[in-house]
Amino acid sequence: MPGNSFGHLLRLTTFGESHGLAIGGILDGVPAGLSLCQEDLQLELDRRKPGQGGTATSRKEADLVTILSGVFNGQTTGTPIGFSINNTDHHSSDYQELAQVFRPGHADYTYWKKYAGIRDYRGGGRASGRETAVRVAAGAIAGKILSTQKIKVYAGSIELGGIAIEPSERDLENAFSRRYFAASDKIIGAWDEVVEEARKNCDTLGGIVEIKAVNVPAGLGEPVFDKISALLAHALMSVGAVKGIEIGDGFAAARSRGSQNNDFLLPRSSDGGPKFASNHAGGILGGITTGQDIIIRCAVKPIPSISQPQKTIDINGNAKEITIAGRHDLAAIPRIVPVLRAMTCLVLADCLLQQAALESLQH
Amino acid sequence: MPGNSFGHLLRLTTFGESHGLAIGGILDGVPAGLSLCQEDLQLELDRRKPGQGGTATSRKEADLVTILSGVFNGQTTGTPIGFSINNTDHHSSDYQELAQVFRPGHADYTYWKKYAGIRDYRGGGRASGRETAVRVAAGAIAGKILSTQKIKVYAGSIELGGIAIEPSERDLENAFSRRYFAASDKIIGAWDEVVEEARKNCDTLGGIVEIKAVNVPAGLGEPVFDKISALLAHALMSVGAVKGIEIGDGFAAARSRGSQNNDFLLPRSSDGGPKFASNHAGGILGGITTGQDIIIRCAVKPIPSISQPQKTIDINGNAKEITIAGRHDLAAIPRIVPVLRAMTCLVLADCLLQQAALESLQH
Amino acid sequence: MPGNSFGHLLRLTTFGESHGLAIGGILDGVPAGLSLCQEDLQLELDRRKPGQGGTATSRKEADLVTILSGVFNGQTTGTPIGFSINNTDHHSSDYQELAQVFRPGHADYTYWKKYAGIRDYRGGGRASGRETAVRVAAGAIAGKILSTQKIKVYAGSIELGGIAIEPSERDLENAFSRRYFAASDKIIGAWDEVVEEARKNCDTLGGIVEIKAVNVPAGLGEPVFDKISALLAHALMSVGAVKGIEIGDGFAAARSRGSQNNDFLLPRSSDGGPKFASNHAGGILGGITTGQDIIIRCAVKPIPSISQPQKTIDINGNAKEITIAGRHDLAAIPRIVPVLRAMTCLVLADCLLQQAALESLQH
Amino acid sequence: MPGNSFGHLLRLTTFGESHGLAIGGILDGVPAGLSLCQEDLQLELDRRKPGQGGTATSRKEADLVTILSGVFNGQTTGTPIGFSINNTDHHSSDYQELAQVFRPGHADYTYWKKYAGIRDYRGGGRASGRETAVRVAAGAIAGKILSTQKIKVYAGSIELGGIAIEPSERDLENAFSRRYFAASDKIIGAWDEVVEEARKNCDTLGGIVEIKAVNVPAGLGEPVFDKISALLAHALMSVGAVKGIEIGDGFAAARSRGSQNNDFLLPRSSDGGPKFASNHAGGILGGITTGQDIIIRCAVKPIPSISQPQKTIDINGNAKEITIAGRHDLAAIPRIVPVLRAMTCLVLADCLLQQAALESLQH
Repeated sequence: MPGNSFGHLLRLTTFGESHGLAIGGILDGVPAGLSLCQEDLQLELDRRKPGQGGTATSRKEADLVTILSGVFNGQTTGTPIGFSINNTDHHSSDYQELAQVFRPGHADYTYWKKYAGIRDYRGGGRASGRETAVRVAAGAIAGKILSTQKIKVYAGSIELGGIAIEPSERDLENAFSRRYFAASDKIIGAWDEVVEEARKNCDTLGGIVEIKAVNVPAGLGEPVFDKISALLAHALMSVGAVKGIEIGDGFAAARSRGSQNNDFLLPRSSDGGPKFASNHAGGILGGITTGQDIIIRCAVKPIPSISQPQKTIDINGNAKEITIAGRHDLAAIPRIVPVLRAMTCLVLADCLLQQAALESLQH
Repeated sequence: MPGNSFGHLLRLTTFGESHGLAIGGILDGVPAGLSLCQEDLQLELDRRKPGQGGTATSRKEADLVTILSGVFNGQTTGTPIGFSINNTDHHSSDYQELAQVFRPGHADYTYWKKYAGIRDYRGGGRASGRETAVRVAAGAIAGKILSTQKIKVYAGSIELGGIAIEPSERDLENAFSRRYFAASDKIIGAWDEVVEEARKNCDTLGGIVEIKAVNVPAGLGEPVFDKISALLAHALMSVGAVKGIEIGDGFAAARSRGSQNNDFLLPRSSDGGPKFASNHAGGILGGITTGQDIIIRCAVKPIPSISQPQKTIDINGNAKEITIAGRHDLAAIPRIVPVLRAMTCLVLADCLLQQAALESLQH
Repeated sequence: MPGNSFGHLLRLTTFGESHGLAIGGILDGVPAGLSLCQEDLQLELDRRKPGQGGTATSRKEADLVTILSGVFNGQTTGTPIGFSINNTDHHSSDYQELAQVFRPGHADYTYWKKYAGIRDYRGGGRASGRETAVRVAAGAIAGKILSTQKIKVYAGSIELGGIAIEPSERDLENAFSRRYFAASDKIIGAWDEVVEEARKNCDTLGGIVEIKAVNVPAGLGEPVFDKISALLAHALMSVGAVKGIEIGDGFAAARSRGSQNNDFLLPRSSDGGPKFASNHAGGILGGITTGQDIIIRCAVKPIPSISQPQKTIDINGNAKEITIAGRHDLAAIPRIVPVLRAMTCLVLADCLLQQAALESLQH
Repeated sequence: MPGNSFGHLLRLTTFGESHGLAIGGILDGVPAGLSLCQEDLQLELDRRKPGQGGTATSRKEADLVTILSGVFNGQTTGTPIGFSINNTDHHSSDYQELAQVFRPGHADYTYWKKYAGIRDYRGGGRASGRETAVRVAAGAIAGKILSTQKIKVYAGSIELGGIAIEPSERDLENAFSRRYFAASDKIIGAWDEVVEEARKNCDTLGGIVEIKAVNVPAGLGEPVFDKISALLAHALMSVGAVKGIEIGDGFAAARSRGSQNNDFLLPRSSDGGPKFASNHAGGILGGITTGQDIIIRCAVKPIPSISQPQKTIDINGNAKEITIAGRHDLAAIPRIVPVLRAMTCLVLADCLLQQAALESLQH
């Protein structure tokens, strides 16, 4: 299992390097009869493209997606949806000098070791964040599956450069309409300042993204190894730059007491499910959804490409100093936000299909 | 993919409920010729059994494992290793009254929803932590594979009830020899106090476990979706009670700057690899191992079974009050420590096999 | 993927050697709420045990199966069904002399090569036909899933030692009630003769098994690689001794003309489906079921263990002569019949689950 | 698992309909450092394109393949190889009239049932033989992996329209240089006659393809479910039009005696392996390769598109008569020959990688 596929009943397989001809993917397992057009994918892709909210590179990729199969007369046919995005704006020469040197904080050295010294060093090759565009396109299709069940997935930035939005102030529902895809309007001024400071210091920033899925039915996720929490952790930690994952109260739960952390169940309301008195669990118990909102947070490390001199070595093991010029984002936020949302959509849609299979034969 | 298997080239499939006849598993993909006996598994299982360090239940399961196949004359044969552990100490009557009521913080409600009202409610059934014994047994075998490559995996408790061991004080190497599997001797007094306080308050505690893998070769892990960080997150988040995962600096990296978080590469030492100036990355870059120590932390929520009255509902949706008597641990720590170590071993051994396949045909 | 698992949504993983402590398996993905007890499995296992119809060994394995998990109060719970069968009648000493010599027609040499000279040589170890008991037990559970949809799977012997039952004479529905699990009463005398002749000659026989699945809904199977014909071929060819597979007219279709081989569609009858004028396709078109009966035939090679002197070599490459004594069947028929039926049930039930997942979200 | 992927360590995922924008695939798991260029793929594709040996359609698809990723400076990089083939010569209007009617012998009805009445009916859509071009392209890459180990895979036609080439006359090594990819020069005249007769009768032909793999090391294939024979049967039966598979003597083995069918082992020759006295087993024992040639035969049904009036129904269940005009092959032979060869290459390369993983850690 060489690592470029994700999911079971809904399965995404991707290809593509930063500076090759194209990137793209195949999403297999989409049920027939779903209304779908290229614009559905493009809408999400446009949220990931450069120029989002002050931290992003000026590299201008149109990121125009083409659906190659699986859709006929505006409907999915149940066959695999192939799609591709051409790479149009490569300045490969920018990277030529980096062929011999490992950039600190990047995957240059690890790919070089993994693949016996062979790698497409241009722009990070396969290790470039560019591959995440394919995830976003596929996640848009997964989102369409979810919307048939009224499930919605929101995501937004809740911390940047160490400056956090208080839980009570977070509004993920409208984050995509704000700069930085911020979960609050009020924080934007403070974030502008920390971004400006980083830019002056030739430095970069990390942050935290929060994801919320609503209207998720109870019962999704499988026992033991494929708990939905485990699948989500896999999905989100597979996005470059993510170094931590929390579900519900996460690390705070580790400091809590049982009496504080348990979510009491209250008599069921008219709509069928129980009412929980709180949601410390983040919508998941025993790895299976409770019907409450699923809440996840992802820690995003600072972009490793900085325009300061850094110590490193070349492929012959000699000491070098490197200063990375070129067009780089100052933070993975906000462009990572639609990527993390997309991965969440893929997991939820896959679990929905899995549960549908079993329910159909339950007595 | 119904959720009871984990891994690719080294693949564990498990079965068993808390109060059924037995629990057990099949570990497929173990290379032939590995020296292995039942005691190798039992040694690890004994670390997970009740009575470890003051927080654990008095339920006395001998947890004796029997290897049923795949080993001949003290060596693995390359065929699947089946093994089982009989359930001998069930007091099922303790649980009879819970058949109708959902315990807060447990998977009772979610399993009931998932499986159309059908569940083995005795002791949590499949959702019980008892299934983790099977993971520990399999992890012991994975550990033997790793040891052929000199890879060692350490794990220990670094925080309990909110009381943490400072990073500089952590000694994971000897944690299994201490009470609580603590990463430091000095903390034990403080932990005894917080445990005693929880016991008095009929409450339970959470904590944090740290894992460190050493001598891991550079190059393990796959690009994009099966980054080793993603596989580890999947593995560890699949353990009940885990609500958060960090690799390297984790959430602290989100508050760091690129200039602080990058690990500089220094000229290679005599043993072949580069020397890194720091290890903020936790031994993983671009999802692939760097050759540095892999560092992971897991947030463990407090045990939800508390001997205090809690609000809940029954399966008919009526309000109930429940007080959980019986034999329950006060914290998942320390018994969860060997479980998390086992899952780490399974991931590393699987990645090792995957990389071996590719390297053998690389030119 | 080390080879001891089969299926996707319904997934069987097995373990066990001929002369180890036990053989067994885990069937994962069985929907909750299915009525199931040990006798359901035992009934099918008894058809596979020695002493069926004149060709079988006198080795007396009770083959008593124990369900270890996944069933509670007579119903499946949706969690994995673990089960085991103890090995009770091993005469391992019979095999000791074979530790050094490769039996012609057996897997001795190939396992020895695959596993670096390490193998459990007792009774063929993992390569023994004994592992098929586990398939039969799991197939019985799959058969229960199918029966909820009125799907029935029949199997019977249609040729033994070169003596075939004419197509017009085949009655698979009652084959299990006849000696040899023969598809016709009339053939039994002729088969008795050819068996007696083989016994006198210290020789063994091959034959052909036919399988028929009825009431299979149209639409099962997936496009391209997981055509149901491909999954069935995989399943059946994985049974030791099977050397050929035909669907519908099979090799005869290769000699037919398009005008002869096409099955015309006639106006649909009252029950919804079309009526086909013939069934040359064996119930599968484009890899997807048509709703007609699925028809498959499997070529079964003669048992390689013969009591005649044979040329071979030992593990040091020296020429040897070997005469295999001991208790061996004269033909894989009839004991292979329930095994092939079981594999067919596993494939059909898996495809049924897969289709249920997609249909539930089709519009 | 929705069915459009094949393989484990070497995994092909494909997309594309007959008359969509493009068809293509992603081959994941190719080791780094393999010399590869587009011409390697094109060479094999050209063998599959129309105009091969008298039975083929005049539809002129250039079938030009483009590699989109995974190759850099003429070498594979270890990352997934994405590739696509544009669809350039569609006469979709030819098919418009078939939107409402099910062609006998085609997958029209089964796809219509599977996908709730939704399908891309143009040219068979996903069920068209056009998807096999993607298999051929991927098989070419697999063949390059095999060639690093000196493994060669030959394939040729041995029977057409019921006229067979005797086993002693078969020369698969040079089949691709002959019309019909025939395994003998002498048969071509007879095949020309039967083809001409079919053409006059507006009918189509079936046939048999034989595959031979040489220099395959002993030890490939996994025990029990993933026997290499089972993987090959899966791979080959997944090709549309294949209705039967034989390994070695196949159905003839069913009529053989054990004393005839066993291949004796003779003292090992200088090159390490034993010498077998015969190869009835087709190079596979217990599902694992013996080191002898692997021999497989595939029964190929006649093309269902015939220019004769046929009875069928429309999507409303009404009786219709259909005569299929348009550009259709008279037989799947010879164009299916490179497809079957490609699938064999994919299986062998995957097994080679799997075995490499295990061997590397065997002691």
